[in-house]
Amino acid sequence: METPLNCAEEQQPPPALPASWSTVTPQESPADRNDKGNAVGFVLVHAGAGYHSESKAKEYKHVCKRACQRAVDRLKAGALAVDAVTAALVELEDSPFTNAGMGSNLNLSGEIECDASIMDGKSLRYGAVGAVSGINNPVLVANRLLSEAQKGKLSAGRIPPCFLVGRGAHDWAVNHGIPPCPSEKMFSLSAYKRNKHKMELAEKVDTGFNHHSKKRRQASETVSSSLPTPYFSTWSDQAALLLDTMLENGSGLLDTVGAIVVDREGNVAAAVSSGGLAMKHPGRVGQAAHHGCGCWAENTSTLNPYSTAVSTSGCGEHLIRTMLARECSSAMQCEDAHQALLEAMQNKFISSPFLASEDCVLGGVIVLRCCRCSDAQPSPDIQAILVEFLWSHTTESMCVGYMSAQDGKAKTHISRLPPGAVAGQSLAIEGGVCRLVNTPTTVD
Amino acid sequence: METPLNCAEEQQPPPALPASWSTVTPQESPADRNDKGNAVGFVLVHAGAGYHSESKAKEYKHVCKRACQRAVDRLKAGALAVDAVTAALVELEDSPFTNAGMGSNLNLSGEIECDASIMDGKSLRYGAVGAVSGINNPVLVANRLLSEAQKGKLSAGRIPPCFLVGRGAHDWAVNHGIPPCPSEKMFSLSAYKRNKHKMELAEKVDTGFNHHSKKRRQASETVSSSLPTPYFSTWSDQAALLLDTMLENGSGLLDTVGAIVVDREGNVAAAVSSGGLAMKHPGRVGQAAHHGCGCWAENTSTLNPYSTAVSTSGCGEHLIRTMLARECSSAMQCEDAHQALLEAMQNKFISSPFLASEDCVLGGVIVLRCCRCSDAQPSPDIQAILVEFLWSHTTESMCVGYMSAQDGKAKTHISRLPPGAVAGQSLAIEGGVCRLVNTPTTVD
Repeated sequence: METPLNCAEEQQPPPALPASWSTVTPQESPADRNDKGNAVGFVLVHAGAGYHSESKAKEYKHVCKRACQRAVDRLKAGALAVDAVTAALVELEDSPFTNAGMGSNLNLSGEIECDASIMDGKSLRYGAVGAVSGINNPVLVANRLLSEAQKGKLSAGRIPPCFLVGRGAHDWAVNHGIPPCPSEKMFSLSAYKRNKHKMELAEKVDTGFNHHSKKRRQASETVSSSLPTPYFSTWSDQAALLLDTMLENGSGLLDTVGAIVVDREGNVAAAVSSGGLAMKHPGRVGQAAHHGCGCWAENTSTLNPYSTAVSTSGCGEHLIRTMLARECSSAMQCEDAHQALLEAMQNKFISSPFLASEDCVLGGVIVLRCCRCSDAQPSPDIQAILVEFLWSHTTESMCVGYMSAQDGKAKTHISRLPPGAVAGQSLAIEGGVCRLVNTPTTVD
Repeated sequence: METPLNCAEEQQPPPALPASWSTVTPQESPADRNDKGNAVGFVLVHAGAGYHSESKAKEYKHVCKRACQRAVDRLKAGALAVDAVTAALVELEDSPFTNAGMGSNLNLSGEIECDASIMDGKSLRYGAVGAVSGINNPVLVANRLLSEAQKGKLSAGRIPPCFLVGRGAHDWAVNHGIPPCPSEKMFSLSAYKRNKHKMELAEKVDTGFNHHSKKRRQASETVSSSLPTPYFSTWSDQAALLLDTMLENGSGLLDTVGAIVVDREGNVAAAVSSGGLAMKHPGRVGQAAHHGCGCWAENTSTLNPYSTAVSTSGCGEHLIRTMLARECSSAMQCEDAHQALLEAMQNKFISSPFLASEDCVLGGVIVLRCCRCSDAQPSPDIQAILVEFLWSHTTESMCVGYMSAQDGKAKTHISRLPPGAVAGQSLAIEGGVCRLVNTPTTVD
């Protein structure tokens, strides 16, 4: 397995990790690092578990690189994990190549409806939006829901919402200063080409459908005529054909993007954003908006020796039913991170009793865990944080990127199943380890 | 603590349960029971954890009684747990006294938006709707999502949705034969009086508000004028006053209703339905639509000695962040059911690190667990199922009802915190145990 690493400090892997994992390349001298003061932190992002064609590998990697850089820029500016992870997500959402934000898949009605959520490992709060249209960056709404909730109760002791959907989510966002973006404009910006291609396919399918399904439609007319929104009787078949075409084309299998971050204080945060399945039913909400399913972040506590953060991608319904983000987070409290994730993916996902009826279980996760290395500090003033990071997927491929705040640039990687492995039944797992060294400053 | 029980068979409580729990009154002879063949099963319902005024106690108990009867009718007709639990929910939703279905609280825009979910312990599937308007019985949509998903994939290998929200959920329901009901009509049926009372309060508040907040509104005009939906600047304050009035009136604290069932085969199912917080933001989705938070059901397996079912009620955001339904279900695998629930409510809810910043943690649960009594069967042809059932709440009160399929009528109870206990910081816990005896027949 390829395990490229690019972190702050040369270090042997801890005994619990496979020896092949850690070949850390120092990119700067301790003097450089001191100049940067508090430039400590680490980000791991994904551009979806699904299928990433070789022909577009460059673009997928490039957006992961930019997302890492955005998070690191925020960490260098003193931001906490929750803000850095939001910055990474904004970059991922802004790409026309990802299925999130303005590059989102279209639903059965030809509209974009997005899901996103964020979790702060420090406050353990969560914010989410589901099936929201007309907002370029759904993660900003999720982040704002989280920060508004942290301000405490609303008037008359009302509890602030943590999860808003649809038109209500859109209006709340706009009323909290997040700019709206008409769906037509979302098409016409950088996602235009991708969506146009889909729409052309839809029209092509439509023409064919209208011709070949005439008899079938006549047969179902009695039923359809009583329904106020008759597009199902025509669109479900259109969707089938369109989806087939898209799958052949390799553009329909990409899902959810996400990021996980640890900041200079050791706080973790996780976020996830998705346009959902191509040709999904309007109003369908996937794991990206579901607490415990799309992302999870939990700082260390008396009960948990490690801080953990997880972001998932793949088939939303599978990830909801298995609550994979939280399961992986819990698993990461075991001693051997690699073995723990391997077992979690095998027992809590591929062989999960919650998915017993599924012959093909599609998903991927990025995971990090960290703890302070109290016994290996260079001096009492300097604190080191050991970060172990991993990704695993049962899909054909998963595109990831990662970077520490002391790296010059991010590393990216398209992870693929081993040759001969069957998507949905086998898994790939890779990862690495790095040590972040913090020189305390007066920055807050 | 009052622990009225009303089950099929006289039986001493198992050693793990408090001796005060179980005083089972047989209501019929074994001959009667044999006449009913497969009339085996048990249902426990709740009409919300919150505040139930003494003056309306009769109505709350009556709706619980009817809900139990509906579930038992279905069980007697040979229905499985998932259908019986749906029948109970329909009855609870149809009452104007509960905050679910047509009796739902109004949101900030004066509309009804409902959440509901259901889980089948046999298939471990879940179906949910969030913020759906214009449907009398949201639980029917959740149930239908679950049953449609059990049919397998849609065309072109698409995964059927398990969670739909807003307009999309409404349209899907109508297209699957669930009749729509205009919001105005929902007001004008049996929920009319309750909603009218609220609207009158709102109007009263509005008048007062328009008078006293003139200056405040003028000050915020610069901000408001840039917002497309300006009701926030006026309605948030109206909401505060209205909510105060409603709380004084005792009608604003009721929440979510739910039910849990075990059928003749020992399958469990759970469901929950809610109109959400009074004066909630449009699009707000609470725990009733959230997997693992509103309800949970899991049949016994190699990993779990007990089948468990849970339904929650209370402050949606608190229940989401703690995933209380799933936590209670997991806890119930411990030997002592009473102690397990007590510790779960204390450690995973009141003192949960996920709610560390909250001074008042409001919620309630109904829980059952069951297992086959293989060592105490009257004969090889007869199987007995031991059911332990409990309820616990941190709210002022919680209204519950329960009934076995062999009972003549349901028992109901309004559980209240002990004298001197502080709502949101203390809890009440009660329950009972009964043994269901199954006489195999040819009924399927």
